[in-house]
Amino acid sequence: MANSAIEILGIGNAIVDVIAQADDAFLARHGMSKAAMALVDEAQANTLYAAMGPGIEASGGSAANTIAGAASFGARTAFIGKVRDDELGGIFAHDLRALGVRFETPAATHGPSTARCLILVTHDAQRTMNTYLGACTELTPADIDETLVAAADITYLEGYLFDPPLAKEAFRKAATIARGAGRRVALTLSDSFCVHRYRDEFRALIAEHVDILLANEAEIGALYETSDIEAAARDLATQVRLAAITRGPAGSMLLRGDERVDVAAAPIDEVVDTTGAGDLYASGLLFGLARGLPLAECGRLGSLAAREIISHFGARPLLSLAELAEAERQDA
Amino acid sequence: MANSAIEILGIGNAIVDVIAQADDAFLARHGMSKAAMALVDEAQANTLYAAMGPGIEASGGSAANTIAGAASFGARTAFIGKVRDDELGGIFAHDLRALGVRFETPAATHGPSTARCLILVTHDAQRTMNTYLGACTELTPADIDETLVAAADITYLEGYLFDPPLAKEAFRKAATIARGAGRRVALTLSDSFCVHRYRDEFRALIAEHVDILLANEAEIGALYETSDIEAAARDLATQVRLAAITRGPAGSMLLRGDERVDVAAAPIDEVVDTTGAGDLYASGLLFGLARGLPLAECGRLGSLAAREIISHFGARPLLSLAELAEAERQDA
Repeated sequence: MANSAIEILGIGNAIVDVIAQADDAFLARHGMSKAAMALVDEAQANTLYAAMGPGIEASGGSAANTIAGAASFGARTAFIGKVRDDELGGIFAHDLRALGVRFETPAATHGPSTARCLILVTHDAQRTMNTYLGACTELTPADIDETLVAAADITYLEGYLFDPPLAKEAFRKAATIARGAGRRVALTLSDSFCVHRYRDEFRALIAEHVDILLANEAEIGALYETSDIEAAARDLATQVRLAAITRGPAGSMLLRGDERVDVAAAPIDEVVDTTGAGDLYASGLLFGLARGLPLAECGRLGSLAAREIISHFGARPLLSLAELAEAERQDA
Repeated sequence: MANSAIEILGIGNAIVDVIAQADDAFLARHGMSKAAMALVDEAQANTLYAAMGPGIEASGGSAANTIAGAASFGARTAFIGKVRDDELGGIFAHDLRALGVRFETPAATHGPSTARCLILVTHDAQRTMNTYLGACTELTPADIDETLVAAADITYLEGYLFDPPLAKEAFRKAATIARGAGRRVALTLSDSFCVHRYRDEFRALIAEHVDILLANEAEIGALYETSDIEAAARDLATQVRLAAITRGPAGSMLLRGDERVDVAAAPIDEVVDTTGAGDLYASGLLFGLARGLPLAECGRLGSLAAREIISHFGARPLLSLAELAEAERQDA
C-alpha cells in the first residue's frame, strides 16, 4: 500500500484488554475510581489480575480501537504503537492487520511485555481501567515513520501517549511532521485524570498543533478547570478547526467555526459495556472527515459506531461498520 | 480445599480459544467441515490465524468449559490439564482459579506452547474449530493425582483426550482409579470425527468404565454407525447408568434404566455462537447429578446453561449460573 493511500494514521499505546465483570465493592476494595483509567505497575497488575474474575482478552488501546473502527468503515488506515514479541503482542498485531490496517512498528525484542489493560465492567455497564503500559514505554521518536506521517490525511493521537515519556516525544514529532506537511492533526484527550496530569502541555499543544479535538465533557471540564462545558467548548472552537465533544447518552456536539451541530446518540436497547464508546465515536467521525462528508453525517457515523461497541463486551467492532452504515442509510 | 470436597473433577485438553467471525466461503477455501473440530499442526495454525479476521481470546477446552460452568452453578470442582508456562497458559489457569476451580497440574516448562483453538463462527451461529494441541500433548499419566481422582464424586473425561497419545493413557488411568474407588465416571464423546477416529476404543471404554455418557446425535450415530438414534440410545442405556443425548434446538433425552426424560431446550431470542453449548449442557447436568437432583431437573439445568452460552461469543458463562438458576426457579 502506498503511503499516499493512508487516510487516517493512529498513534497510541498498543494494549491488549482483559475484560472481566465486577461489582462496585470490588472497585472500592481495590481503590479504583469508577470509569477512569489508572496506571498500574507490573506487580499491581499481577495482584489485580489474581483477584479478578475470569476474563476475555481482546485487542484494545484507545487510538488502536479508533483505527480498527475506521478500517471497519472502509478507511485506508495505519497504526504506530509498540508491542513486545510475545503472545499478546502477536494478538494485537494480528487483529489490526486482519482489518487491513498497516501496522509496521517493530515489536520490542526485550524489556517489558506487551501492555495489558485490566478492565472491570460493573452492572451499570461502566468500565474501569487499570493499565500496565509494559512495552508501550519503549515507543520512541525513532518509531515515527516520517514519510508515513507526512502522507497521511489525518494523524490521530491519543492523550494517553503522554504517560510514557519517550512516547510523548514521539507524539510531538508526529504532530510537527503532520502539520509541517499541511496535514490534519487530531487529538483525543483520552481521560480526565490524564488531562489533570498534563493540563498545561495539552493546552499548549492544542493551541499550536491540533486541528481536530475530541473530548468528553469531563475532559473538557478538566482542561479548562470549569463546569461550564458550553463556554469551554466555545473557547476551544476558537483554537481548533473542529471540536467534537461527546456527552454519553446525550450524544455529541460538533463545533466548527460558527457552525454547531448537535448529534443524538444512536438508540440502543441494552448497554452492555461502555468500553470503547469514545474510541469508536472517533472512528465514525474521522472516517466521515477523511471522506469529506457533511458534519452532521460525520457525527451520525460516530454515534452509530459507538452504539455497536457498547452493545457487547470489548472495544473492537464485531460487525462490519461499513455494512452497518449502509443498512442504516437504507432504513433512513 | 480437601480432596473429599470435590464434586466434579474434569480432565481434558487445556485450550485457549481464538474466536473470529467468518463466512461459508472462508470455511470452504480452507477445507473445513462446518461445525466439526479438526486437529491442525503449528504451521497450519499459524497460516490459518494469519488468514482469519480479528478475534477475541477466551479460555476454552471442552471439559474445562464444563468445569467452569459447574463451578458457576456452585459445584466444588477441580480440573486436570496441561498448559505451558506462557501468557495463554497463565490466562487459562487464571480463568479457572478465578471461579474457585482447583487447578494444580504443573505447566510444562518447555516444549510446545499452550494449545489454541481457532474458532470460526459463521452467520448461522455455527462454530467450526481448528485445534493446535500444543502443550496438551505433554499431559501424561503422572499428571493424574490419584488421591484427587479417588475422592471426586464424578470424574468427567472428554473424548478429545484420545488425540494426544499420552493423554489417552492418562485418561485410562483416571477412569480406572475412579471406578476402583467406587466413584462415577462421566464421558463426553466430544465430536463425531473424534468418534470415527477412536470408535472401537470408545465402545470398549463405555462398556467397561463409563457410568454417565454424554453425546449429541451425530456422535451417537458415529459410535454405532447408524442413523437410528433412538435405537442406538436405547442400546447405550443398557451399558451405562445414564445416557444423555443432546439434540440441539430439539433439547435432550436422558435415559436411565427404564426411565426416559425428554428435556426441552431453553427458549432463546437469538443464537449468537453455539460454541460450548454441549459443554455447558454438561455443566448443568453434572451439577444436578452431583447434588442428587431429579433427572428432569438435571436436564433443565443443562438446557439453562446451554442457553446462556449460545447467547454470546465464547464458551465460558458471562453470568453466574447459580443466580440464573435461582431466577428461573423463582419465575417458575
